[in-house]
Amino acid sequence: MTINSTHPSYDSLVNHLKEAFSLKSSLSLLQWDAQVNLPPSSGDIRALQLAALSEVLHHKLTDPKIGKWLDQLESNQESLSFEQSVVIKETRKTYEHDIKLSPEFVAKKAAAQSYSYLAWVEARKNSDFKSFIPHLTKQLDFALEEANIVKSHTNPYDYCIDQYDPHLNVAFIEKHFSELKKELIPLLVKIINSPIKPDHTILKGFPIKNQETFVYEVTKKLGFDYDRGRLDRSVHPFCSGNALDLRMTTRYNENLPLDSLFSSIHETGHGLYEQGLPKEHLGTPLSEAVGMAVHESQSRFWENQIGRSRAFWHYWEPRYRELFNDQLKNIDSDLLYLTVNTVGRNPIRVDSDELTYNLHIILRFELEKQLFDGSLKITDLPDKWNALSEEILGLTPKNDKEGVLQDMHWSTGDFGYFPSYCLGNMIAAQLWFTMIKHLPSLEDNISQGNFSPLLQWLRTNVHQYGKQYNTRDLVQKITAEPLHSKYLIKYLSDKYLPLYFK
Amino acid sequence: MTINSTHPSYDSLVNHLKEAFSLKSSLSLLQWDAQVNLPPSSGDIRALQLAALSEVLHHKLTDPKIGKWLDQLESNQESLSFEQSVVIKETRKTYEHDIKLSPEFVAKKAAAQSYSYLAWVEARKNSDFKSFIPHLTKQLDFALEEANIVKSHTNPYDYCIDQYDPHLNVAFIEKHFSELKKELIPLLVKIINSPIKPDHTILKGFPIKNQETFVYEVTKKLGFDYDRGRLDRSVHPFCSGNALDLRMTTRYNENLPLDSLFSSIHETGHGLYEQGLPKEHLGTPLSEAVGMAVHESQSRFWENQIGRSRAFWHYWEPRYRELFNDQLKNIDSDLLYLTVNTVGRNPIRVDSDELTYNLHIILRFELEKQLFDGSLKITDLPDKWNALSEEILGLTPKNDKEGVLQDMHWSTGDFGYFPSYCLGNMIAAQLWFTMIKHLPSLEDNISQGNFSPLLQWLRTNVHQYGKQYNTRDLVQKITAEPLHSKYLIKYLSDKYLPLYFK
Repeated sequence: MTINSTHPSYDSLVNHLKEAFSLKSSLSLLQWDAQVNLPPSSGDIRALQLAALSEVLHHKLTDPKIGKWLDQLESNQESLSFEQSVVIKETRKTYEHDIKLSPEFVAKKAAAQSYSYLAWVEARKNSDFKSFIPHLTKQLDFALEEANIVKSHTNPYDYCIDQYDPHLNVAFIEKHFSELKKELIPLLVKIINSPIKPDHTILKGFPIKNQETFVYEVTKKLGFDYDRGRLDRSVHPFCSGNALDLRMTTRYNENLPLDSLFSSIHETGHGLYEQGLPKEHLGTPLSEAVGMAVHESQSRFWENQIGRSRAFWHYWEPRYRELFNDQLKNIDSDLLYLTVNTVGRNPIRVDSDELTYNLHIILRFELEKQLFDGSLKITDLPDKWNALSEEILGLTPKNDKEGVLQDMHWSTGDFGYFPSYCLGNMIAAQLWFTMIKHLPSLEDNISQGNFSPLLQWLRTNVHQYGKQYNTRDLVQKITAEPLHSKYLIKYLSDKYLPLYFK
Repeated sequence: MTINSTHPSYDSLVNHLKEAFSLKSSLSLLQWDAQVNLPPSSGDIRALQLAALSEVLHHKLTDPKIGKWLDQLESNQESLSFEQSVVIKETRKTYEHDIKLSPEFVAKKAAAQSYSYLAWVEARKNSDFKSFIPHLTKQLDFALEEANIVKSHTNPYDYCIDQYDPHLNVAFIEKHFSELKKELIPLLVKIINSPIKPDHTILKGFPIKNQETFVYEVTKKLGFDYDRGRLDRSVHPFCSGNALDLRMTTRYNENLPLDSLFSSIHETGHGLYEQGLPKEHLGTPLSEAVGMAVHESQSRFWENQIGRSRAFWHYWEPRYRELFNDQLKNIDSDLLYLTVNTVGRNPIRVDSDELTYNLHIILRFELEKQLFDGSLKITDLPDKWNALSEEILGLTPKNDKEGVLQDMHWSTGDFGYFPSYCLGNMIAAQLWFTMIKHLPSLEDNISQGNFSPLLQWLRTNVHQYGKQYNTRDLVQKITAEPLHSKYLIKYLSDKYLPLYFK
């Protein structure tokens, strides 16, 4: 996959994109540092640094030279390789998007985001939705205004979704999410009514030092390259950086050992994807993720299909018992595996299991859709959240902190992001059924602690392509079928029914 | 000290400088991260990020608008306050300097520096000076070329010194360093011949966790603001950042507990200076250090005049024994104090005591001077180093790793920096004699763990002024006498003769 450099404008364009990438990744490192290292009162200087770098980056990404190079290259289509045409097509899309947004609009939106985020932190702390209303209203107005400026989609919610998952849209998501809703709600009810009722709170008093050791050993064994990455601590686990310098975070609690473990495996999934993108093309679309749904498919795949599997625990259980001998002495292998796969109703998305998680996302998607089509007013949002929560999850949050205020996404105007999580689960499940056909020894390999055939498969089928295929084309190419919700339903039923009904 | 904003050009200039500062401090954070967090193989992307940010910053600092604003303001001198005239004078100096250096020259020099630094690491590892000769030659040529481009000084070594310590020069340094040499060599010989022979290697097996605790407690008590700063680990201790986000580092070794302690106090001295610069003027010369000699005077002051004093140990010894009870049980108070003040011959500058340290600097100054006036060839440097070492320090390094290759400064072309360390010691000593006159209860305060009058004195007399006064004017203003080497000689004699000849 080398690029045949036929046109000097192509070299100039790639060079420019790589310089922009150096600035963008610097900005990203400053954001990482803000979550991991920033002294408590240093938020002021960091805000100024991020604003200055954002301005410089916006200037670079909207340089009229880009348009000139693209014009020249587009009139020379026949001399371009497939990879080159991908770079040009994707850069054109980003460039046309970015030049429509004035620096003033970008700055105004960024400033409002900062205030809105802080207002959300405060509102959530006090479970006070009312104080958050003006900020949320402004964020929604900004999203609508932006969609109206860019004018790439007739439905503004489609525009939002496209920012995270190009080529996916409301109609597609609606179709598959209603399938999921129809099947997963009764499945959840059935499991909850099972006489088998695991409880992850039996895992208590796990020393943090040993948790760190285990998390490091696991993530390294899965294939994360610590020569080009780190794992640190932050309040909320996340993954940032790139193939050359990847930064993941997790958090530790003595009485929630599965939280640090699975959040680390989750972030490792993101990290392995980034580390598998072709390094030589870094800065160009050939080394960018397809979209957030595919990104989430990677993190969810390692976390759930692998990390919560029998084969995984077959291999890791002895080491786990070595590190946490006392804590596990009354818990046998079956109970441990069942505990790792606890399913139950939880008002909080990030604390929920791999089945219920999807229902949390469906709830948010339905609300976002109604906010954008005007059928739901922001003032009615908490009531609607609670009603839908009862309908979908079978519980009503005891307050707005546990309900509508639990997630930060809306506070920073990130409407349209939530569906990616559930789409990621759909993709992960669909990949899983293809992978086990391609790799008949997969589960044996995992049982023996050999994760490299699996990683190699993902590298070959997903990671190496960057943005060469869009989400739906990529899934079609790998699995020989269109992206569909039925695989997620099958995966969850196949796994959980036998576990809860022996 | 508020700025009376009389001219719109002044506001525009300050605004521009503050934006440049946001970029400069971002660059500095990336450099800090490279020393503290960077994964082992991620040097490539960091080099690209630093290059991209440097280019953007150079562009900002050489923006012709700066020249235009300065022209307007300089023709309106009568309407400017003293502080405003400082900003204009200093900005003019930096601007005229920066615009003379083409982006190509800056980039070429930076690239050569990177290679030269790596060559030095390798050469030092193998004690192989010969492999380093072409790089060192290039660095010297760059320094001479730069001095020739800028043409601000007739002597290129004066130009180099001026980069770190404006208004200081070879003639001044030579006069005072020969005084120091004349007095300190016999003082060292005398002490070495004393029957009292302390040995810091008696301090062994100090658990690192407790060292960390002690270092944190000490630096916090001295006044370091951890709400706006951090202390991390790195191979070589350093201090970077600014008044709003200050990053210090140290290193730990169970058998060298004084290394982590005194390097932390040293960096705290730098940190307190930065944290004491007026925050509201950050980005302008009103919030910049006078120069490196004054910066080093602050670090050396806290490390030596305070950290190695009887009063300091009177206060901290009980806590030190609490944390290191077993390790100190055969060491009484007098022996501990003597050990902290071990004087001896050591080939390595950074491992040497507060007396000998000055002789290490004098050696380097003499060699730099001869390299710049052409009387010393680079090929003859190791022999000359060894001969001077025998003459000044009374020892010949056993190889070039312990001799001419020990310091990184020359590898990155930082000629003219070394004198700042010894000038810093001179300033620290001179400030000390003034301070004890101004604050008669100073030693009592320190004995009681009350460091705030001392910090307040430095804030008022040194920190608050930024670049309002140059090094010599500032010392004259505070001590009512010109900067002079005699105070350092007096301080060292007063302290060490009674200690080694009871």
